[in-house]
This record gives sequence, C-alpha cells and structure tokens, in this order.
Amino acid sequence: MSQVETTIATPGGALPDRFAEVRGFSERLAAPLSAEDCGLQSMPDASPVKWHLAHTTWFFETFVLEKLPAYQEFDVSFRYLFNSYYNSVGEQFPRPKRGLMSRPSLEEVLAYRRHVDAAVAELLENGAGCDPVLADIVEIGLHHEQQHQELMLTDVKHGLSFNPLRPSYADGAFGSTTDAAPLEWLPLEEGIRWIGHDGDGFAFDNESPRHRVFCESFQIANRLVTCGEYLAFVEDGGYRRPELWLSLGWNQIGSDDWAAPLYWFEEGGRWREYTLAGAVDVDPNRPVCHVSYFEADAFARWADARLPTEAEWEAAAVETGDAGAGFVDRLVDSGYAVHPGAGGLGSQSLLGDAWQWTSSPYAPYPGYRPASGALGEYNGKFMCNQYVLRGGSCATHSTHIRPTYRNFFPAETRWQFAGIRLCR
Amino acid sequence: MSQVETTIATPGGALPDRFAEVRGFSERLAAPLSAEDCGLQSMPDASPVKWHLAHTTWFFETFVLEKLPAYQEFDVSFRYLFNSYYNSVGEQFPRPKRGLMSRPSLEEVLAYRRHVDAAVAELLENGAGCDPVLADIVEIGLHHEQQHQELMLTDVKHGLSFNPLRPSYADGAFGSTTDAAPLEWLPLEEGIRWIGHDGDGFAFDNESPRHRVFCESFQIANRLVTCGEYLAFVEDGGYRRPELWLSLGWNQIGSDDWAAPLYWFEEGGRWREYTLAGAVDVDPNRPVCHVSYFEADAFARWADARLPTEAEWEAAAVETGDAGAGFVDRLVDSGYAVHPGAGGLGSQSLLGDAWQWTSSPYAPYPGYRPASGALGEYNGKFMCNQYVLRGGSCATHSTHIRPTYRNFFPAETRWQFAGIRLCR
Amino acid sequence: MSQVETTIATPGGALPDRFAEVRGFSERLAAPLSAEDCGLQSMPDASPVKWHLAHTTWFFETFVLEKLPAYQEFDVSFRYLFNSYYNSVGEQFPRPKRGLMSRPSLEEVLAYRRHVDAAVAELLENGAGCDPVLADIVEIGLHHEQQHQELMLTDVKHGLSFNPLRPSYADGAFGSTTDAAPLEWLPLEEGIRWIGHDGDGFAFDNESPRHRVFCESFQIANRLVTCGEYLAFVEDGGYRRPELWLSLGWNQIGSDDWAAPLYWFEEGGRWREYTLAGAVDVDPNRPVCHVSYFEADAFARWADARLPTEAEWEAAAVETGDAGAGFVDRLVDSGYAVHPGAGGLGSQSLLGDAWQWTSSPYAPYPGYRPASGALGEYNGKFMCNQYVLRGGSCATHSTHIRPTYRNFFPAETRWQFAGIRLCR
Amino acid sequence: MSQVETTIATPGGALPDRFAEVRGFSERLAAPLSAEDCGLQSMPDASPVKWHLAHTTWFFETFVLEKLPAYQEFDVSFRYLFNSYYNSVGEQFPRPKRGLMSRPSLEEVLAYRRHVDAAVAELLENGAGCDPVLADIVEIGLHHEQQHQELMLTDVKHGLSFNPLRPSYADGAFGSTTDAAPLEWLPLEEGIRWIGHDGDGFAFDNESPRHRVFCESFQIANRLVTCGEYLAFVEDGGYRRPELWLSLGWNQIGSDDWAAPLYWFEEGGRWREYTLAGAVDVDPNRPVCHVSYFEADAFARWADARLPTEAEWEAAAVETGDAGAGFVDRLVDSGYAVHPGAGGLGSQSLLGDAWQWTSSPYAPYPGYRPASGALGEYNGKFMCNQYVLRGGSCATHSTHIRPTYRNFFPAETRWQFAGIRLCR
Repeated sequence: MSQVETTIATPGGALPDRFAEVRGFSERLAAPLSAEDCGLQSMPDASPVKWHLAHTTWFFETFVLEKLPAYQEFDVSFRYLFNSYYNSVGEQFPRPKRGLMSRPSLEEVLAYRRHVDAAVAELLENGAGCDPVLADIVEIGLHHEQQHQELMLTDVKHGLSFNPLRPSYADGAFGSTTDAAPLEWLPLEEGIRWIGHDGDGFAFDNESPRHRVFCESFQIANRLVTCGEYLAFVEDGGYRRPELWLSLGWNQIGSDDWAAPLYWFEEGGRWREYTLAGAVDVDPNRPVCHVSYFEADAFARWADARLPTEAEWEAAAVETGDAGAGFVDRLVDSGYAVHPGAGGLGSQSLLGDAWQWTSSPYAPYPGYRPASGALGEYNGKFMCNQYVLRGGSCATHSTHIRPTYRNFFPAETRWQFAGIRLCR
Repeated sequence: MSQVETTIATPGGALPDRFAEVRGFSERLAAPLSAEDCGLQSMPDASPVKWHLAHTTWFFETFVLEKLPAYQEFDVSFRYLFNSYYNSVGEQFPRPKRGLMSRPSLEEVLAYRRHVDAAVAELLENGAGCDPVLADIVEIGLHHEQQHQELMLTDVKHGLSFNPLRPSYADGAFGSTTDAAPLEWLPLEEGIRWIGHDGDGFAFDNESPRHRVFCESFQIANRLVTCGEYLAFVEDGGYRRPELWLSLGWNQIGSDDWAAPLYWFEEGGRWREYTLAGAVDVDPNRPVCHVSYFEADAFARWADARLPTEAEWEAAAVETGDAGAGFVDRLVDSGYAVHPGAGGLGSQSLLGDAWQWTSSPYAPYPGYRPASGALGEYNGKFMCNQYVLRGGSCATHSTHIRPTYRNFFPAETRWQFAGIRLCR
Repeated sequence: MSQVETTIATPGGALPDRFAEVRGFSERLAAPLSAEDCGLQSMPDASPVKWHLAHTTWFFETFVLEKLPAYQEFDVSFRYLFNSYYNSVGEQFPRPKRGLMSRPSLEEVLAYRRHVDAAVAELLENGAGCDPVLADIVEIGLHHEQQHQELMLTDVKHGLSFNPLRPSYADGAFGSTTDAAPLEWLPLEEGIRWIGHDGDGFAFDNESPRHRVFCESFQIANRLVTCGEYLAFVEDGGYRRPELWLSLGWNQIGSDDWAAPLYWFEEGGRWREYTLAGAVDVDPNRPVCHVSYFEADAFARWADARLPTEAEWEAAAVETGDAGAGFVDRLVDSGYAVHPGAGGLGSQSLLGDAWQWTSSPYAPYPGYRPASGALGEYNGKFMCNQYVLRGGSCATHSTHIRPTYRNFFPAETRWQFAGIRLCR
Repeated sequence: MSQVETTIATPGGALPDRFAEVRGFSERLAAPLSAEDCGLQSMPDASPVKWHLAHTTWFFETFVLEKLPAYQEFDVSFRYLFNSYYNSVGEQFPRPKRGLMSRPSLEEVLAYRRHVDAAVAELLENGAGCDPVLADIVEIGLHHEQQHQELMLTDVKHGLSFNPLRPSYADGAFGSTTDAAPLEWLPLEEGIRWIGHDGDGFAFDNESPRHRVFCESFQIANRLVTCGEYLAFVEDGGYRRPELWLSLGWNQIGSDDWAAPLYWFEEGGRWREYTLAGAVDVDPNRPVCHVSYFEADAFARWADARLPTEAEWEAAAVETGDAGAGFVDRLVDSGYAVHPGAGGLGSQSLLGDAWQWTSSPYAPYPGYRPASGALGEYNGKFMCNQYVLRGGSCATHSTHIRPTYRNFFPAETRWQFAGIRLCR
C-alpha cells in the first residue's frame, strides 16, 4: 500500500490544528445556506444541516468532554436532542422529526459549537495528547464529523431538490469536459490477498481485522461508467426489462416509477440534471451518479459485466497504482461545483468522483468485534441489508479517503454520490 | 339578530383601511417567530407560517391583480408554489411538502407581501370601490386571510409542540381564574327557524341561502365544558369504555393511544398542558379545548347529554341574547396568552374562547350553489366527512366572528381550539 | 303510507314460520357456492359467506338462547369467533382475518345452524310468543339476518371478482331490455313532513323517532340513472374534471385510478361488466350501480342536478304512490341474475333495483336513543362519516324493504348495489 | 465429501419412479387438509396449499410439456394463474391475492395434476431420457416440487396459527426427550477450502461454481441451540437490550412486539408453542426454531458466540463427518409430529431438524451465471437482502438435503423451521 500513501493527502499536522481545521470546514460548508435551508429534512434518512452541525458537536461533548469533571454542559436538553442512535447514551429524539427542531436556532447551534470547540481545544492544548484514549476519541470524532460533512451536502441537495425553483446550494462552475477516456480493463491475478486496514493511521473498526481473502483472477474498468453509457442503457429500455433486474429492484422501480437516475429529468426533449449548482444538461462524458445498487447491478448485467466485490476493489486500488490521482481538493478549493467530473475528467482514479457500489453486502470481517461501550454502536449494528461502497466521492474530504474505507447504504438509496465501476 | 349586531365588532371603516389592518395583523402574528419557526410543517394538514403569509398574498394576486392588464407579477413561479387547492387556477405544489420550501426565504415572502399590498392599495384608492366585483373579492380575500391568521397560530402551535424544549410562541400571561360559573341550561322552544346569513354584511357562500329548519324544543348549556369536568371523564375511565364512543372514535383512540386532549401530558403526577405560552398546569376552571369530535361526542354521552345541531346552536346564539359579550379583543390587545380563558372567565358567551363541535355533518344548505369560477372551490367541495363547528375561538379575530359562521373539520382533528358545549 | 303497505310484501305469517323461512333462505343463497367460495374474504369490509352464516346464528344464540338456563352452547369458542362488533359481549376475532377461519368447516357451521335453529324453534313453539321481549329479539335477529343475506351476495361478488376466470355465483338470465323510460321529474310541495317509522310493523331503532322536517319544494326523477347516461358522463371526461368532484372524491379517483363504476372493464373496445352471473355487456338501459357516493354526487353535478336528502326521498316514496311496484320477488324466484334490471325494466319504483345514495350524512334523528345493552351497538355507533342510502336493491329480500329504511355506507364504498336517483 | 454421500439418501431409482414418488408425496402432504384449509393465505409470503399443488404442476407443464407439439393444455388460463414470478413466461396473478382463488377448486387442481402427470409419465416412458435437456428440466421440477412441499407445511402452519381454535394439521406424536447433549465445540483448521457443488448429482445453479474460500480456524457447536437455552436468553431480558441487536432487528422487535419465537405464547404461567400437531409445552431439550435472523444473531451475541458463515458451515458438514445421521425419514414415515426433535433428539447432525441461519448474505458465488431463459429467474434475481440458511429441517424431504444446499430468507422471516447453530 505504500505507493498509495505517498499520493493521498493524510490528515496532517498536530491534533489541535486538525481539530480546528475539520470543525471549521463544517461551518464553511454551511455558510452558503440560510437558517431556513439548514432546517430542511426531506426524508427520515436525511437530516437538517443544523442537526449535523449540532450532532457532531454532541459527539465531542458526550464522548470526550462529559468525562471531564470540570466540564460545564452547554444545554442539558441537547443530550437527548442531538443523540443520533446511541442507545447506550440514552433515548433519542425521533429521527423523522429532526426537521421540526426550529429551536435551538442555527445561531444557538453555532454558539454550542463554539462552546464545545473551546473546551476541546483547551483539553488538547493542556496535554490530552498524553491521554491516548481521549486523543483517540477526538480522532474518531473528527472522522465522524467528516462523514457528516458529506451528508450535509447530500442531505441538503435532497432537501432543495423538492423545491420547484431548483435552487443552487452554492454557485460553482462546471468545467468543460473532453471525451471520456476509452474503457480499458485492468487485469488482476488470482490469489490470496490481505484485505483491511493495516493499523497505520486512522481507520474505523469495520475496516479490521486485516485478513486473507482468496480472489479468482478478474479485470476491473479503468474508469467509472459515464452518463453517456448509462443513457444508452436507459434508451435501450433498461428500466423496462425485468430480466436485467434483481427482483427487489424490479419492484422498486415499479412502485416508485424510476426511469433514470435520481435528479435527472427531461425538459424540452433534453436530459437535465439537478446539481448543487442548479440544473444543468446531462454531460455524456461525466461519471453517472445518484444511482441505487439496483441500477448499478442492472446496468452491469446489461453491459455483460458485473460489479466488483469489495475485496476485488480494494486489491485493485492497492495493486494498480491507480488509487491516488486526481481527486485531491476538488471539493474544497476548486471553485467547481460539487459534482463528479465538474472540474474536468483528468485521469480518473479509483478514489474520488463517486462512490462505487460493490457486490458485497455489508458484513463483519472475520474476527471483527465492535468497540466496547457506546462507540461500539458506530458500525457493527448496521451490518444487515446494506451494500458496501468504496472509493469516496466529490463530496468526500480528501483527508477522509482511503482504499480500505467501507461506506455502506441500503440497495435502494440514491441520494449519495454513488456511481458504477464495472468488473468482469 | 339585531341585538347581536350591536355587540360584536364589525370590521369597520373603509375598505383601504381594513385592507391595511388585516394584512398588517398577519405580520404582527408572525413577528415573534424566527424564519426557522416560520418554516415548520408538522403534518400535511398544517402549513408553515411562511406559507400562510405567501398564500394569502397569492390570493389577492390571483383573484384581484391578475385581472389588471398593468399588473407586474412578483415572481411567476409563485403561482404554482402558493396555490393551495384551486384546481381551476392550475397545478399545486404538494401540500405535505410545504415545509420543504426554504426558498423563497421569509424575507422574500415579506417583500412579496409589500409588492402585492402596494398594488392592491393603489387599486383601492384609484376607485376600485366603483367596481363592486373587485371590491367583493378583496373583501373575500380579507376574510380568507383572517381564516389563515387563526391557522397560523394553531399550525405553529402544533409544529412547536414536537420540540421537547416546549418553546413558547410568545410570552403571554394567564390570568387567575375564579370558579367556573355553575352549569345552567337555557331553554328554547320548538318551531321553524330561519337559519343562515341574512345578507347583511359579509358572509361566506356556505352560510347561504337562509332557509327554514324545524327544531324540537331543547336546552343548551350556558357555558363550555371545563377542564375540570373533562378530567372527571378521563378519571372515570372515559377513554377505556367503548360504549361511550362512536365506532370510528374507538378505533382512533386505540390506534393513536389517546387518553386526554391533545397537548395534555402528565408530569410529576400532575396534568400539564402545552400552550402557545409554554407548558402550564391544567386549570380546572378553564374551558377544555383541543378535543376531537369523537371526544366531544363521547364526553357528551358520558354526561348524559348531547352536542347541539348547528341549527340549534345558531338559534341559541340569536335568541338567548348571549352571543356578544366577553371575547372581543381578547386575542390582540390583551397581553394574555392565546388560550381559552387565559384572560379570565368573565361571563362566557356562545362566541369566542373555543370553537364548539356541533353534531351536524358539514353539508350544503338547501339551495346552496357555490360561486362560479375558481372561488367556487372555496367551500363546497369540502362538504364530506367533516363536522361543523360554531362560535369562534380565542385565536379568531373579533371581526371574523358571527353567529352564522360555519367552520368545519374532520372528526378526528384536534389541533384547532375546539371545545364542547352541551345540549339536551 | 297506506297505499304502500298494500303493495309491498310484509314478512307474513307467524313468527315460527318466518323464522324457518328466513333462516332457510340464507342457506339457499349459499347453496350454489363451494366451501372454498364460502371462505373468501377480499377486503376487511367484506366477510366470508361462511362467516355470515355463522354470525347470524351467533346472534340468535347470544341474544336469545344464552338467556335460557337450559340452553347447551354448540361450541364455546364461537362466542369469540363470530362476534362481529359487540364490545359489550366481549372481544372479537379481528375482522380482516375472517378469511383465515378454515375451521370450523362449512359443514360444522351448517351443523351449528341446525343446533341453534332447533333450539329457537322449540322456544318459539313453547310459547315464547308470550314473552314479548324475546319475540322482539327474534324479530330483530331475522331482520339482522336479512341484512347479512344481502351482504353475502355483495361480499361474494367482490371476492369472486378478483378471480381472472370471472366465475359466476350462479347462472341467471338477463332479460332483454327495452328502452329505458324517458326521464320525468315528479314535483313535491314545500312544507313540514313527518319522517321516520310510525311504529306499525318492524323497524330498526335508527328509523325513529318519527319527527318533523321542513322541506322546500323539489322535484325527483321518476327512475334511476341508466348505464347509458352514466357512460355519457364517463365519455365527457367526468373522471378527469376536478370541478365536478368533492375534494375527497377527487383524491380517491386519483389514488385508486377509478375511471368507471366498480366491475366495469373494457374488452375489445366494448364496456363489459362483471355480474353475479359472470361478465356481460354493459346495457345502456339498465340502472347503473356499484358507484360510490363520490361518483353519484359528481354525476349529479355534471347533470346539473343533485342527490335527494333522505327526507326528500322518503317524502317522495310516500307521496308519489310510486313505492311499491316492480321489485317483489325479483331476486328469489325469478330465475334472473341478481342484478338491477336483469329481469326487465318494467315500471321502476323508488324501491328495489339499486340503493340510492342520498346527500344526507348518516346522523341520529332528533331524540334518537340507541337500545340499552349490547343491541344498542347495532346502529348508533356507526353514525359518523357515512351516507344514507334508501330504497333497497335487487339483492334485498322483498320482506326487508320499506320506505323508512336507512342503509348507510362510507362515501368511497362501491361494492353494494348502489345507484343514483336525481333530484332538483 | 464421500463419507456424506454414503450416509444421505439420494433420490434413488429411475426418473419415472422418482417422478411418481415426488408428485405423490405432495398429495400425501395435502391429504389431511380440507379444501378450505388448502385455500388459506395468511400473508403475501405464504401461499395456499392448493396454489402450491397447482404451481408445481404448472412448472412441468410450462417448462416440459409446452415444448411438445402434441401436448393439450389442461386450461389455458392456468398459465397466468399459477405462474409464480417468471416474467419471461408472462404476467402473473398478484401474489398477495392467491388466497382469493376459490376457483379452480381443489378437485380441479387435483385433476390438473393427474392430466400433467399422465403426460409427463408418458414422455418419460417414451424415452425422454434420451433427451438430456428435458430430463434435466424434469429433475429440476422434482426438486422444485420438494421445495414447495416444505413450504406447504410452513405456509399452512402459518395460516392455521391465526385460528384461535389452534387446529392441528395432522395428529402426530411428540416423543419424550432426554436431556439435550452437552454443548461441545468442534474445531476446524484455517485454510483454503473448496466450497460449492462438485457436479456429482443434482444441485441448483446457486450452488455453483465450486470455488475456493479462505477460512480462519474456528469452532462450531455440536448441536443446535435448545429451547431451554433460548428461554434463558428471553428471561435475561434478551428482547429488551438494544446492545444485543442489529439496528434493523431492534426496530423490528419494537414495531412487531416480538418477545419470543414465533408460535410461542404464555398460558397459565407456562410457555406453550403452536405446532403442526396443535399446542404443546415448550420442551427445553428440543431445538429452538421459528426464529428470525435477527433473533439468531442476537442470541449468539448474548451467548458470546456468533453464527457461522456458510463456508464455515459447509466445511464443518463435510469435515466433521457429522452430516449424515439422524434425520432420514423423520418426516414421512415416523408418525411423529413435523417438528424439530419431535421424534427424539438422537445424535443430532448438521443436517435435518432445523435450518440454520448463517451470517452470510445470499450472494452469487464467484463466476456464477444463472441459467439462460426463464429458468434463470429461479435463483439469481433473489440475491439481495436475504441470508443463507443451511442444513434442512424436519419439513425437508430426506432426498432434498445436501451439504451444499443454499436456502435463503429475509432476516425478519420466522415462519420457516429455522434455528441456531453457534460458532466461535
């Protein structure tokens, strides 16, 4: 994995700096939004931006600061209000009603952030680095916050998308695209591989233990499926041919009348797409995204290919030397819209642009044990009826991407920046 | 009916003044709320305050201004966004998703109001009074807006009630109550009565035509049922005895676990109640409210009485001379909380405090014909599976109350200020 | 009402004979069905024929025989199994699961009938006639059974209708029709009328007390709306024009994709209709039936007419002298299919052929009090969100029809033989 | 695997004999049931026994006989009526409405079976054995029918269970149990193993291709979890402790009020269990069954163990030499109730008694390709949101059990005879 580590950005620097940086970035993401925008909840799975800002703060307060005898809670009711799903911590405010929390106001939540930030900063400066357990939890809290940063973008996109005004989250340019690179198949040999995190740097518990998997030889595509390729599937009647679909997928597209990726719509005879920068024409060269596992799987079948397993994907990311280029800082500093390929296609890598559905149901690695205590609820209890996605997206911070990272969503979800990489 | 007219406030003054007054009052009601509060939608039946502010404006724009060749629309997309249910005008933004309209912002909606207000004011000053049709529609628009003013209060109360912080809409005092007046039964003779509006002053189309109804002799209670009386029903197992309930009501309390009026809760062994001024103790002397038709009907059965028909209620309002006192200006200028009896019990009248469920399903009067055109959708199409309520409430403006007024809600709804007056 | 009484069949003869006759008729209705057919339950509102056979028996056992010390229960578990909705009697087997009762078998239910019939017959012969209370309950039980006889037909029709084989309940001819009679309007004067049962002969409690109602003058149609007239409404876009519909009706036809009466379907460019004798062409001269209140109301609006109130309908039935002809014994002995107009159109009367939706919500008559005890649950608790139908249908036994009879169903129901009579 | 093959029964004999045997066994299973019982459908997932009898027949008609030019269809409408989910064959009658098919009658379905049986028998005798393709499809059809035989039992058990009479499917004894064997852990070494069917004898396509899997060393329990052990979990608050459950499982037990396995109930202070032979006391020595994946997983966590992967399970079945004993003919000829351990505990093997939930989501084996044509819909399209179960149950025919067999059901299903084998 060494060649990867040289190319991807590591969350560098001392913990106090990184804490300030990550916390600040959340607020930077919220900055283009009004308080009203920050209250939107368009479905139970999506939370208001304000809730994300508060919950990530609650995380530090609950798991770091509450352990300190001198800590003064900001508001005791927030324990309940901003607990997401930690039964060990206590009851939770019902998830589908998060959009009803007009109080505390966005301003109060920002004050809550300042209160907690000051306390954590003080702790870190006063040598919490000496207490490796607390430092570890701060580290988890930062990665936790980075996960929510991506959700802030995908959730607010979903919320705004119901507005017939098609409002943009923020102005952002779409660079002109050249023709997508020709599809090539990168070959990998059969054999036992070590899969999972090697303990060097941060990883979530679900990336461990590192373990052996036997893979047959296979080939993986050099780039993501493009909108143009996906359009060919649509126009070939892809959504009307049951033989291409998993049974549950066929039911889903029937009951929800799916006929294209989420956010696509026809207007004046053209395919258009709602993005975080408003509506644009679908560009055939950009990677397709906002597809469900069902659609990724059906497309692969139509294309006479398949989706990779997560072990195959990880092996390819490590072995093809193609894991590092092209995605760093696309999001933050680019001035481009937060959208796959918005900043140009460049030389696509396995990382960035769009999460890639794998054919692997989300399951524990052999020997996996969740952390003890409340943080053990982080990952393990969700290992049912979800699929693993790999690779990160245009909405993932560059310091939050790594080849062993296991993202997971139910097969029918589409509001993440999730695309397709073929295998055969 | 003359004695009534002398005692209730008529929306006095010239149309331009009244227009300014009513429009201004809506904004005054919204003033204590943040933009975030104004976006809350807690159920499909309840709309955000911001939506009410915009929809009432849309009403004037659509039915008054759009007819003027010179009128410049504020924003063409608002036609669709803020149409409530007028199929004749066009498609409507889906009602359950009104809470997702973070754009236009509250500020933009207030600007929309100023734009439309200026245009209507100019029209009225330039002699639209000469055009009786337009003046009539402005009049309807004002009464329409007053209906929405009440809904702004009941809808935001519902929205805020889900917040475990139990926030108050606005500070407001609760006057101390004396003992409720003893229950007395006012007798009325059998005979044919003329029911419905006599054409003097404004009325909605559903109050016409005035027509004859034969009533047997009956007695009506001199005041509303109190919280103390209702509590006796609760403590007598009222919610556990099927023989007291309509079949649909029994199903409802079973499936929704109702055991007390909406907003009541037990805390520390006492009954508390969420109000627009926050949580308070249930006061046994104040009128009970936030009950459904099912609960009103079951309570009446338990009390060996019944609910009045709407004809009986109207006859009583006209004939007992008890229609006018006690409610005027309670809401606006009182400094009291918007809650039945908050300003003291005084001498209760049939009008004000709480709407009173009648036993009359909402149906057309004999010979009723809706207005032609879009405004014909105002009332008639809702005459199914609803019950008539009479009398107005603490949240009704004093210029919007009259004995012939027919309010209507489905039997299971509880979020209005609806109480109980007995009959036998 | 005297002219009516001379023409309609009264349930004649001594109580023991009538008991045998009515009980036998239920089994005669079930005779063409297999045990499998008798177990069908196609929706919660419709019960299996076997259940009807058992429940009507349970009624006699519970309300008549259980009071006799010597009575030996057939099977103690039937108390629970075949209680429909009498909370006073005890818990009930869940209604939507009645179709899961493969045991007791149809044969056992028929044995249960014989057991109870023998006990009641013995009671009646041994002078129960002397006990007027018991005799009254037997009388109620017989009318109760006649209600269920009609439901046996409508429920099994609904159940069989899902079968793509379009099976017939029983063979039955359709007489050839002549042209429907020209539409005429029968005039009635304004005035106070006495409405409700006068105490002569049997009536359900909801037909009392007899009371005064003031009616304006009106005109009522001489016959039911025909399929041909209804087809004109369909072809004029009736189901696509929101201005014709109640708001709830418009929602209903949208969500359930209604575009014609229940059981109508298009086949080879023609309108066909599923009947108890299988599929037949829609005959433009026969009365339309299997329409909801929503459809009846929308049709009337389209035809520039309205539905009668139940008081108007009853006045017309009494005063036009048109209440008695044409329907007697159509069902039982005719050899014709059980369908409106199957035996020819003859001179239509207000009674028979199809129930007629009135515009009257089902509400208690002034002074109405349900019977005390369990039988008080018979009618009163259903007086909410239903509409009154008058007149009886082709599936109503001729001894179960009278001008004061109040049938009631929710506005959206269509599986009864319910049609339309216009008024203006 | 050779030692397995010597001990398990192979579906022996020539194809014509086996055809007669398997077909006859379906009817033997239906014999104790009335036509009414055979029509029961208690949930969309469970089909009426009559439907199973017809659908398995449809399978032979559609995939074998329809290819023969001379074959005379029994009833053309059955093509549609009894197609389960083969989109390639055509539209299907809606699954949740299978219980509404009172026609064709059970007798007609049995006649349909005789018609098809005669045609297939003739085909087989006239040398279809020469056509290996047809012979293969007949073979698949027989295994398909055996799958439905198990479903006939589990579906009718579910249907009858709603009947408060707690009827028995058939009389059947429960042998007295001795103490369950002490729990022992059988050790297996780490290494690459070949998993999947080796091509010798029949297997479904989802058991192929045979492929290599790397397993760490592990231990597997020598017997199934007993009711007594499960009861300890229940009494230790197992259903009230969120930390033991997958998140979806915790939601499920909350929304459905699960507090014990399906069919368990408390009566008079004891745990009782509904079985195919009626209600019996829960026997602590018998294997627990009718648990969901969620319950199996939570139990394992509580017991500080885990569920095996399907590869581990298969390796254990092959390598421990414990795959063959004890289950043969328990079902058919035993006279015992169809229930795990009803015939005594004997020496439990990995096969028989109860299906065992593995921790493996149902996914394609590497290189898996479904058959082409309609039969390709058999397995592949269901590979989403299901878990693999291994081992067969008391309701599985002894000729339908093999170590590579992959059964699969969604995590929340409980109506199969599914139990728990621990691993660590």
